[in-house]
Amino acid sequence: MSQKTNIKALLASDAIGSTVTVRGWVRTKRESKNVAFIALNDGSTIHNLQVVADTAKFDENTLRNVTTGACICAVGLLVESAGSGQRVEIQAESIEIYGVSDPEKYPLQPKEHSLEFLREIAHLRPRTNTFGAILRIRHALAYAIHKYFNDNGFYYLHSPIITGADAEGAGEMFRVTTLDAKNPPLDETGSVDFKQDFFGRKTNLTVSGQLQGELGAMALSKVYTFGPTFRAENSNTARHLAEFWMIEPEVAFNDLDDNMELAEDFLKYLINYALTHCADDLAFLDARFRKEEDKKKKEERAELGLLDRLNFVVANPFERLTYTEAVEILIKSKPAQKKQFQYEVNWGTDLQSEHERYLVEKHFKKPVILTNYPTHIKAFYMKQNEDGKTVRAMDVLFPGIGEIIGGSQREENYEKLMARVKEVGIHEEEIWWYLETRKYGTAPHAGFGLGFERLVLFVTGMGNIRDVIPFPRTPQNADF
Amino acid sequence: MSQKTNIKALLASDAIGSTVTVRGWVRTKRESKNVAFIALNDGSTIHNLQVVADTAKFDENTLRNVTTGACICAVGLLVESAGSGQRVEIQAESIEIYGVSDPEKYPLQPKEHSLEFLREIAHLRPRTNTFGAILRIRHALAYAIHKYFNDNGFYYLHSPIITGADAEGAGEMFRVTTLDAKNPPLDETGSVDFKQDFFGRKTNLTVSGQLQGELGAMALSKVYTFGPTFRAENSNTARHLAEFWMIEPEVAFNDLDDNMELAEDFLKYLINYALTHCADDLAFLDARFRKEEDKKKKEERAELGLLDRLNFVVANPFERLTYTEAVEILIKSKPAQKKQFQYEVNWGTDLQSEHERYLVEKHFKKPVILTNYPTHIKAFYMKQNEDGKTVRAMDVLFPGIGEIIGGSQREENYEKLMARVKEVGIHEEEIWWYLETRKYGTAPHAGFGLGFERLVLFVTGMGNIRDVIPFPRTPQNADF
Repeated sequence: MSQKTNIKALLASDAIGSTVTVRGWVRTKRESKNVAFIALNDGSTIHNLQVVADTAKFDENTLRNVTTGACICAVGLLVESAGSGQRVEIQAESIEIYGVSDPEKYPLQPKEHSLEFLREIAHLRPRTNTFGAILRIRHALAYAIHKYFNDNGFYYLHSPIITGADAEGAGEMFRVTTLDAKNPPLDETGSVDFKQDFFGRKTNLTVSGQLQGELGAMALSKVYTFGPTFRAENSNTARHLAEFWMIEPEVAFNDLDDNMELAEDFLKYLINYALTHCADDLAFLDARFRKEEDKKKKEERAELGLLDRLNFVVANPFERLTYTEAVEILIKSKPAQKKQFQYEVNWGTDLQSEHERYLVEKHFKKPVILTNYPTHIKAFYMKQNEDGKTVRAMDVLFPGIGEIIGGSQREENYEKLMARVKEVGIHEEEIWWYLETRKYGTAPHAGFGLGFERLVLFVTGMGNIRDVIPFPRTPQNADF
Repeated sequence: MSQKTNIKALLASDAIGSTVTVRGWVRTKRESKNVAFIALNDGSTIHNLQVVADTAKFDENTLRNVTTGACICAVGLLVESAGSGQRVEIQAESIEIYGVSDPEKYPLQPKEHSLEFLREIAHLRPRTNTFGAILRIRHALAYAIHKYFNDNGFYYLHSPIITGADAEGAGEMFRVTTLDAKNPPLDETGSVDFKQDFFGRKTNLTVSGQLQGELGAMALSKVYTFGPTFRAENSNTARHLAEFWMIEPEVAFNDLDDNMELAEDFLKYLINYALTHCADDLAFLDARFRKEEDKKKKEERAELGLLDRLNFVVANPFERLTYTEAVEILIKSKPAQKKQFQYEVNWGTDLQSEHERYLVEKHFKKPVILTNYPTHIKAFYMKQNEDGKTVRAMDVLFPGIGEIIGGSQREENYEKLMARVKEVGIHEEEIWWYLETRKYGTAPHAGFGLGFERLVLFVTGMGNIRDVIPFPRTPQNADF
């Protein structure tokens, strides 16, 4: 395929003395007596290419239109750079203006903008260093996910987005409909007649592809999903999105230990991949992270920098313990003794964010995998332990993030599964197909869900999940 | 990571004489005097592994439960196979039954089932040879898509699924809502008050990620999307789904010629990847395709077999011509002269499927790229030609499939774009962010959309698009 040379390639090029063409957006222009220095970026790398233009060579109009945000094409000699900060630069022979950018109106001036302001111009923020870096890392992580699974014999299964089942109960759902919004058809009982809706039934946006993933694993052995999932929850936090991407591997013949091995190996592979393939972007975000931390009070600052933290996670085994052991640690902990936790810890209650953070950030100071949670706080499909009160669940907790992975071994026994289905009040007829896998050739199996944006949050060191997805969907916000 | 050896690896293994463990689902069991032959499949490959069990070694109950569909774990010696059809087999020393499968009830008996019936048991059909092959090829193609773009410097951009804009007008949309279905809140004019909906406005499921892809390309230069898209159209055909996956690359500084180069190179890469990585599955589907064709009348049979067709597409350049040239060919064609086309061909009308098929299957006998369509039959964002009546659109047409790719160079000129926006009646305030990219650093750019399921349809040789996605969504059907 014919390829135009991008700035990343030019910056690494040895073709000193050859004539090259470069295209991109102007980050800054600096003028000295007879020369203009143009910093050009095309998004292929965080680094700019310097284009040097003899003012005598160009008509006034051209250089006047070279302003921050303008798009240009420059042709010139690739030469060794006299200035510091770059190895090569271009001595422009011609410059074509593709698109001007009125300096009075262009919102992205070369100064620091707040993240809040940048969210309002999400269509332009990928042109900043920070968001360019985030999006390139997001790409690298997505690619690494596919590569890891492909190299390990998994098959990518596209689970449906529109679903007729609300079985998992993972959260509030969005309704998908083509019925008249104001005057929907009613049935003889006066209820909305969803039989007349597009799919002949009430349908929602999926909250998880797991149940369908299990169907795939009961035939192909190793599958994964990677698709959008949805929560119609009115939570305006820095950790929640109404639309986010999730990765859900599901493996036949795996038990809870295998599941933990897979989760830890997978996360370490992904972080390692980013460290190897996104060094420039991570170096920039590492410096950004330090600056942000320096703004905080000393006692609130992170102990490790971004790169140090990523390297630490890759190098050290995750701590593994049961929910019961974790509760014992928490009950004996200083904050519990001094009544500094907002929520009391007792066996049987779900752990709050403050408890998880204590375990991960204070007690173990590393990622933690908690297992074997009380049955009644976990989903119906998790494998029941012999103790009659816990299930083979696992949560992977990360510093600064909290739960990054949630998973379990699945209940493969039809009778035990049906008992839980009835107990929690799921309508059997909604998931008859799921239940049938336990009737015909059932097998032990396990899997988990990784929130993609939480992973990107961790790897980039950003503080708000709205800043690691191109166009965030949150309550009251579906712009762009 | 600890790995269990799968059947694909065992079939290729040289470890003759070693004790191995194999897990999978029973396809068939054949019993001779003292021996049972069990064909076991775990989805890692289309081939089964033969497990040979001396009936004397096992209690009756165990072997009685080894029925089609049951899931078992067998431990035994890997030996060279005496029988034909396989290189190695396992002499079972122990067999554990993970899950039985009542032969009276299991829907998937070892005989040929109709595709219609298999759609009704989509939760089990991945256990058949045909659907195992399709899903593995689907995976390989999805992976190849990511690999191609990654290797060529593209960044994967997640465009939003829930959207507030209906700009592209690509088709009917599904509404996404959390409003009360029966009694929605009304505003002072008596209309439904979408300000009270979850996102503070009326929202729909996306029909295309292109507009957001363009935002990405105007910062990162080369991006692609790969996500689900939706059409709320009541069309029950073998070519349409309500939910399908689409790939949309978008490249700054590309013109229509570059766009054609990219599309052709991309499609050939993907087909080549499948030929290289899915040889076993394609051999099976090639044989299946021949059998299906043989059922047809001679004059309706495909000229080439599946593998021959794939190899032909990879080896030969696509035919490129303008819409205007195509119309001239069609007007002069035999079927037009003999009035055999259902729809008349005239310059200015959209080509019908019968016309596209004539060009691809009869006239050129190869993939065709049509360009420069009349403005008024194409979308508002396409770059207007100087002739004042055509736009730089392109459609890639494939034999048996029709349009597999649709794309264009985009109109980068703000005034020209605005003229079309007004002409077709798009609300500017819905896409202010899209229009702003033409104000600030606009650049020539081009892109296209590839329907993923149409690609899988072509590569697998299947006839109905519902058979190349795990859980199809169509009018009146959101099962599983």
